Amino acid sequence: MDERAALALLENRLDPVGDDAAVVNDLVITTDMLHETTDFPPGTTRYTAGWRAVGASLSDVAAMGAEATAAVAAYAAPDFDAAALEAFVDGAIAVCALVDAKYVGGDLDTHQEFTVATTAVGRADEPVFRDGASPGDVVCVTGTLGRTVAALELFEVGKDERNGDEGRDSRDEDSAEEGNSVLERANDLFQFEPRVRAGRVLAPHASAMMDSSDGLARSLHQLAEASGCGFALERESIPVAPELEAVVDDHETALERAITTGEDFELVCTLPEAAVERVRGELECPLAVVGRVVDADAGVSLDDEALVDRGYTHGE
Amino acid sequence: MDERAALALLENRLDPVGDDAAVVNDLVITTDMLHETTDFPPGTTRYTAGWRAVGASLSDVAAMGAEATAAVAAYAAPDFDAAALEAFVDGAIAVCALVDAKYVGGDLDTHQEFTVATTAVGRADEPVFRDGASPGDVVCVTGTLGRTVAALELFEVGKDERNGDEGRDSRDEDSAEEGNSVLERANDLFQFEPRVRAGRVLAPHASAMMDSSDGLARSLHQLAEASGCGFALERESIPVAPELEAVVDDHETALERAITTGEDFELVCTLPEAAVERVRGELECPLAVVGRVVDADAGVSLDDEALVDRGYTHGE
Repeated sequence: MDERAALALLENRLDPVGDDAAVVNDLVITTDMLHETTDFPPGTTRYTAGWRAVGASLSDVAAMGAEATAAVAAYAAPDFDAAALEAFVDGAIAVCALVDAKYVGGDLDTHQEFTVATTAVGRADEPVFRDGASPGDVVCVTGTLGRTVAALELFEVGKDERNGDEGRDSRDEDSAEEGNSVLERANDLFQFEPRVRAGRVLAPHASAMMDSSDGLARSLHQLAEASGCGFALERESIPVAPELEAVVDDHETALERAITTGEDFELVCTLPEAAVERVRGELECPLAVVGRVVDADAGVSLDDEALVDRGYTHGE
Repeated sequence: MDERAALALLENRLDPVGDDAAVVNDLVITTDMLHETTDFPPGTTRYTAGWRAVGASLSDVAAMGAEATAAVAAYAAPDFDAAALEAFVDGAIAVCALVDAKYVGGDLDTHQEFTVATTAVGRADEPVFRDGASPGDVVCVTGTLGRTVAALELFEVGKDERNGDEGRDSRDEDSAEEGNSVLERANDLFQFEPRVRAGRVLAPHASAMMDSSDGLARSLHQLAEASGCGFALERESIPVAPELEAVVDDHETALERAITTGEDFELVCTLPEAAVERVRGELECPLAVVGRVVDADAGVSLDDEALVDRGYTHGE
């Protein structure tokens, strides 16, 4: 059973399954567990891990159009290394500070594998769900897509360069420095600003919203299912991250990966076309109109070709 | 570095470290990570695991004197077994229902070891901290101490009986049934009612409060440190659980283990003696006065002998 099958199974037991966060009165709450082998490639600093893990939960709060109140993390590692733990907490504090949330610590545990469970809470008087998209709306994406793919590419390069260096004369340090600088860039790209402010600006106008943590293609299929609609995307309008263009060979590859690889933590939302310019005026980040909401039987398409439901699913 | 050293290290970075839950305005939030090898003995059902994991976080909310709003869990296992996951969620829902909180699901992850991270949130206009105890107050404990030790004993017995049975003729099922019934009792004892209602009743009167999840001895040392006081306990007044008396040889052993072994999730609090009877009239559970708050230089004592700071510390 993969994660989606498991979630489907739970739908009978838990009512608001299927949104980025649960809503209880005006409280929004979401939790995520990440661990080393699947979520933090070799070369990821603990600062970046703290930033990214807490940021992932804050992104879910953003996707509800809520303000972010606080975040906590349970941190488990084989041993409590002081420098690593401090770096993690500093990363968590930094990402919370970006969105005016308070990082208030959490729990410590010993675990064979570095594992983090983060929870963020927020408040929204009128949260935005996934089920309100209707034909005629446009579908938009904040920021750009592909920074995470670019980071993963650079983590690979950095790893190879560090490994390659081990067999050489230790005085030949150019390659090692190169590897470190590549890893620094990878870490920078792996940090992201949770779109809490953008979510607040979009909320009064958005008919449906979620984050792109499972990739644009999968996110749109999920919005389509929740709203009972389809999407017609235009290839040219997809905001491919320049950082991704810089590390892959051609634009088509970059586009393909930007769409199908997740974890960029941008917002994907639908809204009336008439609201776009007004919203853009209030946003601090770019907002790309990538297509239109269409009838359900038209499915999800990119330049009139079916866009398959591919992306990241835990447990596959 | 053990958990307490790690927490001390973080005190410079996070301000409200040291209470059962963090407070942000009127929001109370707490998170815990539990995993199979250290927290769920063989024989623990997934229903009990769900109950206990979520209950542990609700207990932290109770210890702040807050009402419990909602809880989430991140559930990680080697594979998503449908029956196990359903049982876990049912246990989580059941413990939330006991304290009028809403269980709103969470995240799924694959992990080599069954691992759960739970978060509970609540609200309190005037939360109770650990630092308000002052000489003259009495120190009280809700319910009884030792149910968890009794459960651990029974899990051992149940395991031995099941193992012993494996070598025998499979038609000799008496022992297997015995083992199962022992495990059922162990599971019952391992479930507990988070003291949210008691915490609400105690909050207006309590000068300091926490839960006994690290054991009474350790809890009192932590209250003593936070409040700058000592405690003089009376051996006769410790409410040892009858379930523990039933599984250990003598009262002294039961008392010793009830005091030093944690995870009973009762509330330990200090309050003016004059408030005790009034509070008892409103409580649905017993409240034992186990001793008095004394000056810091008197330390923590039991019948005038020093009570050492022993209990459960992660990472040791």
